[in-house]
Formats: sequence, C-alpha cells, structure tokens
Amino acid sequence: MKPTGLLPREKVLRDPVHSYIHVDQQIILDLINTPEFQRLRRIKQLGTTSFTFHGAEHSRFGHCVGVYEITRQLCDYFSRNYPTQKPGDGLWDDDERLVALCAALLHDIGHGPYSHTFEHIFHTNHEQWTQHIITSPDTQVNQILQRVSPAFPNQVASVIAKTYPNKQVVQMISSQIDADRMDYLLRDAYFTGTQYGTFDLKRIMRVIRPYQDGLAFEIGGMHAVEDYIVSRFQMYQQVYFHPVSRGLEIVLRKTLQRAQYLYEQQQFTDAQMPSLLVPFFENHIQVQDYLRLDDDALNTYFNLWRDHHDPILRNLVHHFLDRIPLKSITFNPQQHTSLSHMKQLVQDAGFDPQFYTDVNNSFDLPYDVYDPTSKKPQTPIELMQPDGTLRELSKVSPLVSALNGRLSGDQRFYFPKEMLADSHTSTFPDVLRQFQSHINNNSLQD
Amino acid sequence: MKPTGLLPREKVLRDPVHSYIHVDQQIILDLINTPEFQRLRRIKQLGTTSFTFHGAEHSRFGHCVGVYEITRQLCDYFSRNYPTQKPGDGLWDDDERLVALCAALLHDIGHGPYSHTFEHIFHTNHEQWTQHIITSPDTQVNQILQRVSPAFPNQVASVIAKTYPNKQVVQMISSQIDADRMDYLLRDAYFTGTQYGTFDLKRIMRVIRPYQDGLAFEIGGMHAVEDYIVSRFQMYQQVYFHPVSRGLEIVLRKTLQRAQYLYEQQQFTDAQMPSLLVPFFENHIQVQDYLRLDDDALNTYFNLWRDHHDPILRNLVHHFLDRIPLKSITFNPQQHTSLSHMKQLVQDAGFDPQFYTDVNNSFDLPYDVYDPTSKKPQTPIELMQPDGTLRELSKVSPLVSALNGRLSGDQRFYFPKEMLADSHTSTFPDVLRQFQSHINNNSLQD
Amino acid sequence: MKPTGLLPREKVLRDPVHSYIHVDQQIILDLINTPEFQRLRRIKQLGTTSFTFHGAEHSRFGHCVGVYEITRQLCDYFSRNYPTQKPGDGLWDDDERLVALCAALLHDIGHGPYSHTFEHIFHTNHEQWTQHIITSPDTQVNQILQRVSPAFPNQVASVIAKTYPNKQVVQMISSQIDADRMDYLLRDAYFTGTQYGTFDLKRIMRVIRPYQDGLAFEIGGMHAVEDYIVSRFQMYQQVYFHPVSRGLEIVLRKTLQRAQYLYEQQQFTDAQMPSLLVPFFENHIQVQDYLRLDDDALNTYFNLWRDHHDPILRNLVHHFLDRIPLKSITFNPQQHTSLSHMKQLVQDAGFDPQFYTDVNNSFDLPYDVYDPTSKKPQTPIELMQPDGTLRELSKVSPLVSALNGRLSGDQRFYFPKEMLADSHTSTFPDVLRQFQSHINNNSLQD
Amino acid sequence: MKPTGLLPREKVLRDPVHSYIHVDQQIILDLINTPEFQRLRRIKQLGTTSFTFHGAEHSRFGHCVGVYEITRQLCDYFSRNYPTQKPGDGLWDDDERLVALCAALLHDIGHGPYSHTFEHIFHTNHEQWTQHIITSPDTQVNQILQRVSPAFPNQVASVIAKTYPNKQVVQMISSQIDADRMDYLLRDAYFTGTQYGTFDLKRIMRVIRPYQDGLAFEIGGMHAVEDYIVSRFQMYQQVYFHPVSRGLEIVLRKTLQRAQYLYEQQQFTDAQMPSLLVPFFENHIQVQDYLRLDDDALNTYFNLWRDHHDPILRNLVHHFLDRIPLKSITFNPQQHTSLSHMKQLVQDAGFDPQFYTDVNNSFDLPYDVYDPTSKKPQTPIELMQPDGTLRELSKVSPLVSALNGRLSGDQRFYFPKEMLADSHTSTFPDVLRQFQSHINNNSLQD
Repeated sequence: MKPTGLLPREKVLRDPVHSYIHVDQQIILDLINTPEFQRLRRIKQLGTTSFTFHGAEHSRFGHCVGVYEITRQLCDYFSRNYPTQKPGDGLWDDDERLVALCAALLHDIGHGPYSHTFEHIFHTNHEQWTQHIITSPDTQVNQILQRVSPAFPNQVASVIAKTYPNKQVVQMISSQIDADRMDYLLRDAYFTGTQYGTFDLKRIMRVIRPYQDGLAFEIGGMHAVEDYIVSRFQMYQQVYFHPVSRGLEIVLRKTLQRAQYLYEQQQFTDAQMPSLLVPFFENHIQVQDYLRLDDDALNTYFNLWRDHHDPILRNLVHHFLDRIPLKSITFNPQQHTSLSHMKQLVQDAGFDPQFYTDVNNSFDLPYDVYDPTSKKPQTPIELMQPDGTLRELSKVSPLVSALNGRLSGDQRFYFPKEMLADSHTSTFPDVLRQFQSHINNNSLQD
Repeated sequence: MKPTGLLPREKVLRDPVHSYIHVDQQIILDLINTPEFQRLRRIKQLGTTSFTFHGAEHSRFGHCVGVYEITRQLCDYFSRNYPTQKPGDGLWDDDERLVALCAALLHDIGHGPYSHTFEHIFHTNHEQWTQHIITSPDTQVNQILQRVSPAFPNQVASVIAKTYPNKQVVQMISSQIDADRMDYLLRDAYFTGTQYGTFDLKRIMRVIRPYQDGLAFEIGGMHAVEDYIVSRFQMYQQVYFHPVSRGLEIVLRKTLQRAQYLYEQQQFTDAQMPSLLVPFFENHIQVQDYLRLDDDALNTYFNLWRDHHDPILRNLVHHFLDRIPLKSITFNPQQHTSLSHMKQLVQDAGFDPQFYTDVNNSFDLPYDVYDPTSKKPQTPIELMQPDGTLRELSKVSPLVSALNGRLSGDQRFYFPKEMLADSHTSTFPDVLRQFQSHINNNSLQD
Repeated sequence: MKPTGLLPREKVLRDPVHSYIHVDQQIILDLINTPEFQRLRRIKQLGTTSFTFHGAEHSRFGHCVGVYEITRQLCDYFSRNYPTQKPGDGLWDDDERLVALCAALLHDIGHGPYSHTFEHIFHTNHEQWTQHIITSPDTQVNQILQRVSPAFPNQVASVIAKTYPNKQVVQMISSQIDADRMDYLLRDAYFTGTQYGTFDLKRIMRVIRPYQDGLAFEIGGMHAVEDYIVSRFQMYQQVYFHPVSRGLEIVLRKTLQRAQYLYEQQQFTDAQMPSLLVPFFENHIQVQDYLRLDDDALNTYFNLWRDHHDPILRNLVHHFLDRIPLKSITFNPQQHTSLSHMKQLVQDAGFDPQFYTDVNNSFDLPYDVYDPTSKKPQTPIELMQPDGTLRELSKVSPLVSALNGRLSGDQRFYFPKEMLADSHTSTFPDVLRQFQSHINNNSLQD
Repeated sequence: MKPTGLLPREKVLRDPVHSYIHVDQQIILDLINTPEFQRLRRIKQLGTTSFTFHGAEHSRFGHCVGVYEITRQLCDYFSRNYPTQKPGDGLWDDDERLVALCAALLHDIGHGPYSHTFEHIFHTNHEQWTQHIITSPDTQVNQILQRVSPAFPNQVASVIAKTYPNKQVVQMISSQIDADRMDYLLRDAYFTGTQYGTFDLKRIMRVIRPYQDGLAFEIGGMHAVEDYIVSRFQMYQQVYFHPVSRGLEIVLRKTLQRAQYLYEQQQFTDAQMPSLLVPFFENHIQVQDYLRLDDDALNTYFNLWRDHHDPILRNLVHHFLDRIPLKSITFNPQQHTSLSHMKQLVQDAGFDPQFYTDVNNSFDLPYDVYDPTSKKPQTPIELMQPDGTLRELSKVSPLVSALNGRLSGDQRFYFPKEMLADSHTSTFPDVLRQFQSHINNNSLQD
C-alpha cells in the first residue's frame, strides 16, 4: 500500500463529541502517531478553565482530531452534493481533500502549555510555531508530509497561514465559522458540562456549500448559523471569560515572571532548576526545546518550588496549585486613577501590588463584517439565495446585527481575597473598610 | 455561622455527569478547598486508559465530588421517604448525613499517580493512605474534620475501613452497588464516550432503601440493578481491560522499575534526578512526600529522561510518552512453556525480554454472593419484597446468576509490535515467521 | 390520610424531559386521574407540526405534568434558599405551593383539538375554557379542588387569569419566562429532535428568585436568561412557524369551514355526520361537549369524508390526511394587489382560490418590555443586582435589546403545489409560466 | 431524472433518534408520500404503553423511516469496506441496495391499530397485510415499486417473507439483530425516556459484516452485540411487558369483543355505528377497508360509546379512555384452580368476570440459537474470528448463554382495582378480605 493511500478498512478513534473519528488514509494515521502530535495530550485545551469547570480537563489532542473529523465530513458532503464539473465553476474539487485534512489535523500542533499566558510572557506565537513544526525538516510530521510531495508541507502550512490559493480549503480551517471553532465550541461545552456552546452542527453541515470565493450558507439555514454565532458569544461570556479562571491565569503569569526574574538572579539550585524552561528564559528556542515543554512540566516545577527560599514564588505556586484565585471587580476605562488608589490600599494591607494585583481585559468580537481597515480583517459570513446571489449575515439577522462589530467582555481589577474579608476580624480594619467602600455590585465605584 | 453549619444559600459546582454538585455545608466547601483535595486534579482517574480513549483525561477530582453528590441525594431521598421513627427501626437517621458526606468526598484522597501500577511497584496502598491522610494531624483535611469533633476524623476513616457501626453509611460508600461505583461508571462512560457504563442512576436512586442490615433494593427495581451489574461488567471488559491501555501500563511499570534500578546504581545526574520519587525509591515516605507526587511529575521526569544515557530507560520513556504500546495475544494457563519459547524468539529478534515482554492478567468479579471463605467477602445485593423479606439478587436474576462468582477477563502476553511486522522486510525473517506461526485469532497456539 | 395530604412515599411518572415527574400529594395524583386531564393524551401539543417534524407527536398530557414538575422544583428551591421570615418581606411563602402546583398542572386543560385553528373557526378560547373547567361544578377536576376548600377552584382559576394576589405565583405560571414556556421549549425541542429550544433549565432554576413584585433573576445569571430568550426566538422561527406545517394548517381550516357550510346545507348523511362537532357548528357548547372532542375525532371524521359526495371536502381531507401541503411564498404588506393577480392565476389553472389559496401571518414578539398601552402588556424580565436594585433585561443585554419589541416572523401566500410544476408538462403552460415569473427567492416579485 | 434515480441533492427528514433520515433516491421519497405510508402517522408504535410511559406517543411512521435509515447506513458501510469483487465471494453487492431500502421502509406498512390486540381479535396478520399492500395493484405503494420493474414489488415482499435469495438483505431487515429491532429499541427508549434500550448502535454498525450466508459480527465486537441482547431483554421486561399497559390492553380487548357482540345483536344506532370496523366484524376485509382504520377511529368510536345503552360497553370505554387499568398479580401454571376461586370472588364482589378478569402471558425469547425443530427457527448470531471461522454467540458469551432459549416474562391474572380496596370501607368486606388473603408479594398464594 502506498504510504499516502487509502486504508483497506477505515480505522476509528472513539470520541465523545463526534462518536467516532474516521481515519481513512495511511498518512493521517501516521501523523497522529508522531511524537509531536502525541505531545498534545499533555497540553490542556482550556488551561486554567478547569479550575472553574472541573470537567474541562481535556487536552488539545481530542480537539485536533475533532477538527479533522469535521473537515472530513465536509469533504464528503461537498463531494456528494457539489462536485466540480469543470475548473473554475466554484464547486468542490476533491483533490483538495488531502491538504484540507492535514491542515485540519495539524492546525494547533504549535500550541505550548497554558498557551495564551505563556505566549504573552515568552513572546512566542503558536501559529508561527505550527507552521515551523510543519515545515522544519527536523520533525516527524514534516517527514511524513514529505512523502506526498516535497512541496506538500509548505502547502499545508500555507492553509494555516491563509495564503493557500483555494479559499474553500482556507475557510474550512479558518474563518468565522470553521471546523476549528465548531469543534472547540461543542467540545468545550461537552467537557465543561454547559450547554451554551451547543449548536446544531449537523444542520450547519447541511446548509454550508462551496462557491467561487469560499464557503457560503444556504439562506434557508440562516437561523442555524445565527444560533452558532450566539452560542459562540455565550461560551465566551460564560466560560472562556469566567472571572475565576482569569484570576488563576494572573497567578500563573506572575509565577512565570517571578521565576524568570529569579533565574536571571541565579536563585535556583540545581534541584529546582526548570531545565525545560531555560531556553525560554534565555529566549533561544529550538524546535525540540519547544516540543519538550508541556503543562505537566510547569506543574512539576511549581510543585518543586513549594520549598523555594523566595517567599513570593513559594506563595504564588501555592495559590496556583491549590487553587486560590485572586478576586476581582469590573471597572471602566475612565477609572484608572481610582485603580491606583485601590492598589495602594492593597499595599497598605500588606500585599505587594506587583504580584497580588493586576488588570485583565477579556473581549471578543462575536462577529464582524469585512473591514479592510481592521488589523485582522474577517471574511464575512455570506448567505446564498436560491438565485445564487449573496447576502451578508448581519444584513439579514437582527441578532447578529446586534453583535456585529461589538466587542463583548469586560475589564477587571484583581486583588487578594483577603481584601473582601470582614473588616472586624482584620488587622487592617480601616484599610479593608475603605477598600470595600469603593465596591458596589461587584464594580468599582468612584 | 458555625464552621460546620449550613450555608445560607447552596453553592454549586457545574458537573457534566450530575449537572450540578450541590454544596450545602461549610465543612464540605472547606474540605474541597484543601491542598490535599485539590491535588486530585493532577491524578488522572483512568491512568493509561486515556491513551486508548482520548476523551478519558478526567481527574479524580470530579469523581470525588460526584460520589459526594450521589451520597447527598441518597440522604435526601432517605430523609423524605424512610425517616427513622425510633432507634433500631432500620430506617434512616439523618444525623449520619455528615459522616456519610465526608467519607464520600474523601474516599479516594489517598490515590497516587497511575494508581494501580504505582502501588504495585512501590508497595503502597491507596486505601491505607486515604485513612492516613484523614487521621494524620499534619493535613488540612484532618484539621477541618476536627472542627466537628475530635473523634470525627476517625469516624470518617472508619467508614472507609468499613468498620463504622452504621452499615447503611458503610454500604453507601463501599459495597457492590455504592456511590463510588455508580459515579465512576457513569463518569468514565461519559468521558470515554462509550455507552456501556450508562445505567439508569435515577431509577436506582428510587428503588434503594435502608433496612436493618444496610441497604436493599425494592424487588420491583430488580431490572435496574441487573442493568447496573451488566453495565459494570461491560465497562470492565470493554474499557478498563482494553489491551492497548494495558500495553502502555506495562511500559510504565518497566520504566519505573528501570528508574529504581538506575537510582540504586546512582545513574542519575542532578538535573535528571527525580527528587519527588526518591522517597519512594528509598521506601521511606512521609505524608507530605506522598502528597507532592502526581501524574505530572512522572511525565516530566520521563520527558527529562529522553536524553538519559541508559538506552533502555530512554527507549521506554519514548514508548510511553509517544504512545507506542506493546502488542499482545491471549493465552491460557496451560501454555506457560510455549510462552518461554515466544520470549526466546523476542530475544532472538534483538529485544531484551525483561523489558519488552510481559504477562498481564486482568480479571474482575462482576458480582459475588457472600462467601465468608473469600479473601475479600462481598456483601450480597438484597432485594426486598413487599412483605419485607429479602431475596439475594443472583437467586432472582438469570443474568446476574450467569455472572455470579465468575471471573471475567483475560490473560495476555505482551511483546514489541515489530514481532508482527512483515517477515520479508525484517532482518530476522525466520524468527518473525516462527513467532507469527504461533499466533492464530490473536491467541497463542501450541 | 387526608385527601389533600402528603403521600407517605413519593410517586413518579417517567418523563423524557425531566427524567421523573415527582408526585408528592394526593390531590395532584387525583387531578391527573380525572377524565378531563386524561383527555389531554388525545390532543397533540403541536398540531400540524408533526407533519414536518415527525417526532413531534407528543400530547399536551406530558407538557402539563412537565409544567407542574418545574413549578414543584421552583417551590423547593425557593423554600430552601428564600423562605419568608415575615409577611411582606418579598420572600417565598410555602403556603402558596398548593395553589401554584394545581394551576401549573391544569393551565392547559381547556385546550381543544388543533387548538389555534379550531379556536379561530369556532370562536372558542382555551384560556376561558380552562377556567370554566376548573370552576364548573360539573367536572371531576372541580370536585377534587373543592376538597381543599370551597374557594380553592376559584383561586386556581385566578392564577390562570393572572388576578391572583401573589404575583410570584402568577409569574411562575405565566410571564415572559415561566414554567409553561420553559417546559414547552424543552419538550418540543426534544420531540422534534431539534436543539434550538435547548437552554440551560438547571441554571435558570438557580438564578431565579422571589422578590416583592414577583420573580427576578440574579444578574450573574443574565446570560442564561438571554440564552432562553434566544432559544425561544429560534424555536418560533425554525419550528413553530415552519411554512410546511402552516400549509397543512390552512388545509385544516378550509376543511372545517367547508364542513360547517355543508352541515348548514344539510349535506351529511347519518353515517358521515360529525356528531361530536355539531355543538360547535351550532355554536351551543356545553362543558361535556367540549370535553368530548379531540384530535382523533377530527381525523376520524375526515377519514369518513374521503367518500363524501362534495368534491371539495373530499379533496381537502385527502390533502390533510395524506399530507399534501399547500406551497407558499413570502410577500410584504405593499403587495396586496399583486396577490389578487396571483389568486386569479391559480383560478385560471383550475383551482378555486377560496379553498386552495390563503394568506398566513405568523409573528411573535420574542421579548417585550412593559408597555401599558399594549393590548397584552407583558411583565418585563428584571435582573437583580447584589445590592437589591433591579435592571430590566433589555437594558443590559444587547442580544435581547435587538429582539425587544420586534415582531419576528413572516407573511406567506399559499397555493397548490401544481402551480410550481414544469410548465411544459402542464395543460396551462402560460398560466404557470406567468405565475412562476412573479416568484424569486421564494418571494413574491412585483 | 429517472423516477428511480438519484436525487441531485440529498433530502433529509429531521429525526430525534438518528438526527437526520437521508433520502437519496426519488423512489424512496415517493413511497414516503403515499397515503398508505402516511397512514402510519395514525398508528401508535407502542399502543397502550403510552398509558404507562406518557412520552411514548410516537407513531410507526418514525420507526419505519428509522429502519430505512439504518439500512441505508449499513449499505454505505458495506460498500466502503466489503465491496464484492466477484460473484459468490460473500461480500456486499451494492445492486441489492434498492430492494433492501424499499423492504426496510415498508416492512411495517401492514400494521393495524393497537396491533397485537387487534390482530388477535380479528384474526388479521400484519406481516401478511404488509406483503399484500406491497403486491396488490390497488395501492400507490405498488404502483411506485412497479416503476423499477414489474417483478420488483414481489422481490420487496419476498424480503419481508424471508424468501429473497440474498440472505444478507433478508437478515438486514429480519433477524435476531436487524435494522428493525435496532431502530425500535433506540426509538422506544428515547420516547419512553428510559435508558434500557440504549445500546451502542454506532459500534454495532462498525463490527457487522457480510459473509457467504448472511451477516456476521467481528468477534472483537462481541461485547457490543451482547450489550444489544441485554438491552433488548431489559426493554421487554421493563417497558413492553409493563403490567399496567397490559391491564389496559385487556380493557381494549374486552371492549372490541363486546362491540362485536353488540354488532351481531344489532345494538348500534346509526350514530354510534362503527362503520370503519364493520368489515372486520363481518370478516370481509378489502385492502382499502384495512387502510382506512387507525387508532384514532377506535378512540373516536369509544368516545361515542360513552353514551351507549349497554352498561358493560359504556363502562369498558370509560376504563380505556380515562385510563383505569385492571390490577394484576402473577401466578404460575400450577395455580389454575386457585384462579377459578379468585374469579368467583370477583363475581361475588359484583363484577362480571367475563369482562373484568383475564389472564395475560407475556414472554419473550431474548436470544435463540438455531433450532430446526422450533416453530419459528431463528438464525443464530455468528461471530467471525480473524481467520474467517465463525463462533455462535451464546458459545462465547456467558451473558447470552444465560438468556439463550429461555423464555422471560410472566403470567398475570387481572381483576378490578376495587378488589384491593380497604375491606372496612367495602360493601363486601368478607369477599375482599378473602381475595386479598390469597395475595402475597403481588403473587397468587395457594
């Protein structure tokens, strides 16, 4: 059998979201079996969210095979219902299947531990790392893709970079309603045990269709698309932006920052030295360094640092491992001076504000029409009418119109939970009383 | 508010299996917030099973709060429908609620990483550690339980040891159909995405009842109990005993054994030294040592050992982290001489059989009537007739009778997957041909 | 045991939506067992919708016990978390439980067959009939309610009439987010097999709370309420207003109108005479007449009329029983003159437009703030902040604001499907060609 | 497009069990649209079971399209994984697809109202009627099938008669594990809201395979098959044989018998005359008579008979429509003399035992190996080993072995609920006391 050929019998992976992941081709099986892909089992999909929703301990492994599975089903549906008849007719060319499937499977292979926090501290970018892992000859992923053709790894990477010429393929993997988002919403809803992310995948998969410039949706399925947009909005507001998870994300960030500082000050003994983190501290990262790090390594170093001689590091890892989140209140941009005052009060109560206060902004754009002046212009969602003409989604749906271009989320000030204690039992009764007098309805009051 | 009192408003944790975990009492909240309990987030519920069922990455944390929740619902149901009228009437005394809830919550707090494998190598026992953590004054769990009364920690521990006088409480937590098993079957079914473990919890919760000697089931609910027994049997056969997970469990065992050997030979540099494991290697384990270790630590050490100078350790951790399971065939007890021959062939093909072959027996007793001569005699499941008389389950159900006292499972011989390769492409064509000639229908042939 | 007392052990009905309906009181059991309540098994919940969603064949019986069950859970939740301390404190008084449960259970007992269509033709009103059945001494329902007290039937009826003094009780049964709507959305989603109606009932049940003027929602649960509003909107747009079901509803209406006409003309033989309908034709309806009629009776008369000598009646019942819906296009209010032209074309093609064309408007108000000038002013949904102040939902939620006060739905013109046939194969090629030229994207073109 | 050809785009029906029913071919669409098939909407799938499980009001329509859908998926799976290479190789020939799909869709088209009861009274047989409707030139179903070829209707009918030459097709539709049973178990579990019937359809669909003599299952999937057998057993014991539903089935039988008797005695006025039943009373039934009758007609006649002058008929329809089931106890075959005594006591209490007592036996054979001497020999379930040899299921599975050839169910004696009343409040205290003394644990005592 050709290394890139069809398997004589399908193989399957049992999956709680899609029932089964169907693997039909040798190359997909081989990619799943690489160390680079298996590493994804040790990277949680939702980072600190599992501190709030204890079911959400799932890793990126399941998400990646899920995105692959949705893409595979899309290819099957397009082949049955919209097969191209002649080049340029805007219908689906099934020769694009392999590049689409590989890009879907590998789209997140560059994710590091606790991704967003980590990237921010160490100035890495998971999308660039994804492309790097795919195109670097040092990885097994690359070697397997090479078997298709020498140009194939770059083609797969270009889908992720959105420069691949076939826009249908690009939009399958990356657009405002793509296999990536559809899988993570359903998967995160399943594992958190919430229902906000549940939309009707099967119906969307029946109204999506290829056309000249990418993917569109039959107008008769408009409400299913609308429902997806609202579900996505809800997941952001209720799950991804949960204040408690963010309170632990801040603890994580402070921990990594403090560790970097202590490393620079040579304050780690050999036994506590986080050797897998050193390339990041040194800002000199090879592919193999990058691939060696995972969530487990961070947790293990944190565990070792419970005994570190630096009281701040010790205290931060205790907060993180034992789940003691910072508390928070919302505020608005006009209140920055009041914030300084609040920080001062935290300091007066005995906490170093550099480590025990922070601001976190979490905003999402639930939907955006195309705006060429935007930093990251989004392909709008187009609805196709029976006569073939298109209508942009927010023009037709009042719900989507209400969300269109509107950042949703909030801005929060974080501080130690001790600040909310009963002031009578505190050693700083006045400080606490003053601090609490600035809070009403969980918001900062001027 | 008393530290052991009722919360003015219930708190909840979102749970994918029970929708919500309801926390009604301050003490339960405080126990959940201890470092000892939070550690359970870093111990996978199913160990290497997640290598086969990728959704099953859930930790023991969720299971423990789930067992608590089922117990809480049982207490509510008994209070409503079977409240005791006078001592000794065999009905439910709600003063037992608190000890039942605490024991339910804490019943697994002594689990270590990859429990069964780990316990086997290091001669630890999670049930003893559970009792130790509860009764040792060094833990926060103990200090919180002490608030109820000085005797309370021992009472809770005695429920787990099955010596607590109220048999209803003991059987809630530990019997052939208890809150522990009911939660893990449902939970593991949910996260693996299989349906074998799904039985009708709500119906069982409506036919269970207290009586003089513990818990019984109304005979009208016999089929619901039967269904649970069969579900449990199915989960063991299809999920817990999956040959691929066991193939990775063997790799894990070999890895830990090799590490212990290398430690004894002083073959670890400082940077690779698994300091959190040393107390186990030295067989001198303090509570705090025990509580410091988790799955993440093992994975991290394994990752560091990818570069170890010992080729066997290096190769074993590669198999484990990158999910390369040993392959297996079944055999029967009469074939032990043939096994020696197979091991010899593995050696002839260049693999050290000490590290690359093993035997694994996985058997479960799906149900057992009481047998006082058994090593671990089981309380039988009793069905109560309308006139109050009892009938033992296997006497009434032909299905359960078929499973009663019958060990189910298999015995497998594990070996490197290379032994099944196409012999034409091998450097040892004759060895492989001979090896393969002893296998038919995935079983050893004489 | 008192006829109105607690049952010694709860009884349950298995329910696919709520798992179990818990019956705790003798009076509820007795009400369920009345002929008036059992009749609801023969009235479909969704009328002609089952022609589009074949799973939706469920009756009003299940819905009514479902509304009861939600109400029961609300009472339990309020008793545990918001028990009144002194009269007028705005908290929950559990003495209101019985009237709430009875009103919940009985709120739809006055529904007739294919309710909305039927009411329109025969000028009946199911809410008035509900009150009449509850208060009329001729029904068993009334006699059972009388056992509580002579005034009790009127109290129950006044909850349905929204004149009962306790607004918390009234709003439980009837408001923009009440037990009635919550049950039917979940139930109809379950039986149709769609997911649009699925919202997070358990979360809503945890953020709802009593206050001085009725029921409010904790502001932290705002998104759960928002999700419910959107789900309701989606169910209306996608399920309740489905054009095909409406196409069969029109056939039903025409059938009943034709039958009334033929009755007035004395065109029914004894064997075809719809005796159960005669009181409605005569507009002289006693309670027992009303309670005798159900969906099955209509279907049976229609089946008998397959042989009626009137070709129009014969043809209409064939369309209804054999599911041949009229087709439709949307139009807007300005196009009424074009509609006349279309009707003329239908007539030119050989169909009597009086029976084979119609207009159907289906609009819903997904949410409305209080407008005292409205015909049916709605209680707005209030969110309660931690300091006890209220904010009206649409002020806080952009999604709800987008739907607020906005009628959603469409206006459709219905006609025989033959009008869309291939004009080449028709005996009226020009008529069809002309008719079809007025349609684009399923809408009327001027 | 050919009337038997592929549709250019698939059509779908929303289905709560299979998400969507996929209609790919014109002929399937046309068959669904016949009056004969639409009639199935007016025949409940589970008859009187909806009196016990109120959700189970679904009709045979959904079941029939569900069986079609499972069959379609089987054809797809076989085409992908087991396509025939040359005649006689025992693999799947996709030219059999059309006959398989049509037989699956139509397999229940001959069902009458409240099937089993009805057939028993009027000596009809739904399987023979199914074949008759398919082959009779008077039906639209037949005319549509004729378009394929003149022989096609007989081929479809021969699949249902199990005489079609291709055993794979026959076993898809009718065997111990076929599309029919798989659909009804899942569907009935869904609508009743029980979980007993839930087995892992997707897994079974991945281990089933064609072979020379029909269908077999890969031995690796043995537990999935076992799970199906147990689920089926559970559904029979817990749902289909529920004593309360059987208590209403008896009322139905008595009603029809009494109506037949009164018809023969000319005791129906014109207005009460059940004209649609007359052909059955006369035992002279044409296809069109058969197709005119449905559940609704029976219910409507019963409703009309509430006023009948015969007190027995009047009372029986009251019991049926208002759900007043007979009560029951189990007994064993040796107790027939005691039964006579019990009947006498019922008579002494004022009830005519001919109408108010009865015996009902409900037994099912959960699994049977092939027994050529049996009246209805069953094809055994065969498991295929990797080397192609077969093993019969009960030889391998202890669970199935326990059920093999074993009739499961019970024998019940039914009587009026008044017999169980408190004897103190009765006018026949001695009779009741004596009657009740013969009952213990819901069983007859000698």
